[in-house]
Amino acid sequence: MISNQEQGTIASSEMKASQPDLKFDLSAYLASRKAQVEAALERSMPIVYPEKIYESMRYSLMAGGKRLRPILCLAACELAGGTSDIAMPTACALEMVHTMSLIHDDLPAMDNDDYRRGKLTNHKVYGEDIAILAGDGLLAYAFEYIVTCTHNVLPKNLLEVVARLGRAVGAAGLVGGQVVDLESEGKTDVALETLNFIHTHKTAALLEASVVCGAVLADAPEADRQRLVRYSQDIGLAFQIVDDVLDITATQEALGKTVGKDLQAKKVTYPSIWGIEESKRQARQLVEKAKSELSVFGEAARPLQAIADFITARTY
Amino acid sequence: MISNQEQGTIASSEMKASQPDLKFDLSAYLASRKAQVEAALERSMPIVYPEKIYESMRYSLMAGGKRLRPILCLAACELAGGTSDIAMPTACALEMVHTMSLIHDDLPAMDNDDYRRGKLTNHKVYGEDIAILAGDGLLAYAFEYIVTCTHNVLPKNLLEVVARLGRAVGAAGLVGGQVVDLESEGKTDVALETLNFIHTHKTAALLEASVVCGAVLADAPEADRQRLVRYSQDIGLAFQIVDDVLDITATQEALGKTVGKDLQAKKVTYPSIWGIEESKRQARQLVEKAKSELSVFGEAARPLQAIADFITARTY
Repeated sequence: MISNQEQGTIASSEMKASQPDLKFDLSAYLASRKAQVEAALERSMPIVYPEKIYESMRYSLMAGGKRLRPILCLAACELAGGTSDIAMPTACALEMVHTMSLIHDDLPAMDNDDYRRGKLTNHKVYGEDIAILAGDGLLAYAFEYIVTCTHNVLPKNLLEVVARLGRAVGAAGLVGGQVVDLESEGKTDVALETLNFIHTHKTAALLEASVVCGAVLADAPEADRQRLVRYSQDIGLAFQIVDDVLDITATQEALGKTVGKDLQAKKVTYPSIWGIEESKRQARQLVEKAKSELSVFGEAARPLQAIADFITARTY
Repeated sequence: MISNQEQGTIASSEMKASQPDLKFDLSAYLASRKAQVEAALERSMPIVYPEKIYESMRYSLMAGGKRLRPILCLAACELAGGTSDIAMPTACALEMVHTMSLIHDDLPAMDNDDYRRGKLTNHKVYGEDIAILAGDGLLAYAFEYIVTCTHNVLPKNLLEVVARLGRAVGAAGLVGGQVVDLESEGKTDVALETLNFIHTHKTAALLEASVVCGAVLADAPEADRQRLVRYSQDIGLAFQIVDDVLDITATQEALGKTVGKDLQAKKVTYPSIWGIEESKRQARQLVEKAKSELSVFGEAARPLQAIADFITARTY
């Protein structure tokens, strides 16, 4: 995909200066990593009694998606000199946590969505009670899974992963972002500062945890962790800006979810503040900044740099 | 309370053989420990932006209750030679997790309760969306809090605490028990085996984690951990049997929640299978078994033995 950016809605000649190495095939990389992650997720959750809750958790966990968070975790671990093996349990846990947030966000008391990734949402299939419990179960299991299934990692680093993941999900992260998002609904005077708070917490916090936890598992030095923090905050915000743009420009079929929801809900978004073109420019600028953070790693940074480009190039 | 068991609804002459040391004042012990735990909980959760979610989490976290899980954790840690200081962050985390389960259980999609401990339930005050998020936030914070606030504990033991807590809350614990409980509602032919599954998961799993995590923090040897596992499974089940009995025999004022709910909901309970007297006898027998597991610890086991007695002696 990234090797043919001209097809991307947000690609532009501005990006050519730092065009990623054309020999690096990101499509193939993402496809292979996605398959690897899905095989691991498949193994992570056997169905036992009481079957219904495991089926409900698996239904959403195995419902597809880009698996971006696990892939970022694996890539960051390798960048920092680790193997994908030591990062795979954390990669799976990140997807469990992300899935929890989607299940709970879709509930009638929250965004009230019937479809997600082209499939019925969890509560439409299993009922609200089971959907709430499936989210709780996924969140709790994520922490258990990291600790019981990770091998060959220093205990102090594994503890840091637990702390970072907890923080990324809780009121200082995802939950806090969701609360401000709910409070801002229907308001037309939401400040850019508030919008940034929502997305640095609702989206970027977990992306940051994905990248930084990968590096922590590989025992990366502090300076490298800080570079990866900045990289992930930039791509996290760029990711959300592009999401807002796509909500306006993409078709429902391509997006796999209801489009134009933000407009219908009169939500303040980046395009509603900046317009579509300026939003695309800001996203591109963030991606360039993110990539420059990684230049010190040389060739080893190719996957993460290509993933940054992919964020602004994606059309769905 | 325990020093005057004759006033307890479930106390009986059978218990006199193993009457706890009258010099040990359990009332004073519980009151002092509860104050200590509540001070720590108070400090654990400052209110920052976005205030609403922290207020919501604190509302339920500080809503009272016996603080049985934290107290068990502190007592087990001391029994195994540790200090209450090293166990306090885990003790607080156990209460956060317990509070999460109460908030989510009370939701309209679940038990639909308006009152808890004599106060409006979380969603009645803050709305369903915030209540769902408050539960998620408490659960995530529990893990972060254990890792970032525990000092002077071996990293491997702290990792075991995280794993045990995760397991106790997830589908293999509390969530799994709740699912089977929901599935059994309205059924009049629920087997004793199913009822045991519900309560060993919904109640006993977290009590077990409370006790065993305390011992793990103190680096207790495996044989001692196993004794404490058996102790806590027995008191966990006894606790639930007594709860079922109290749902029939106690007054609403004393219980602080709607009574007779099980009867109204036609729920199968221990008294509905065994009758009230046999239920009391079974609870007493479990408590005796639990206490005998601890005899090897001598004097050091007094708090945990007195807590076991307290479970069958309580009248509210």
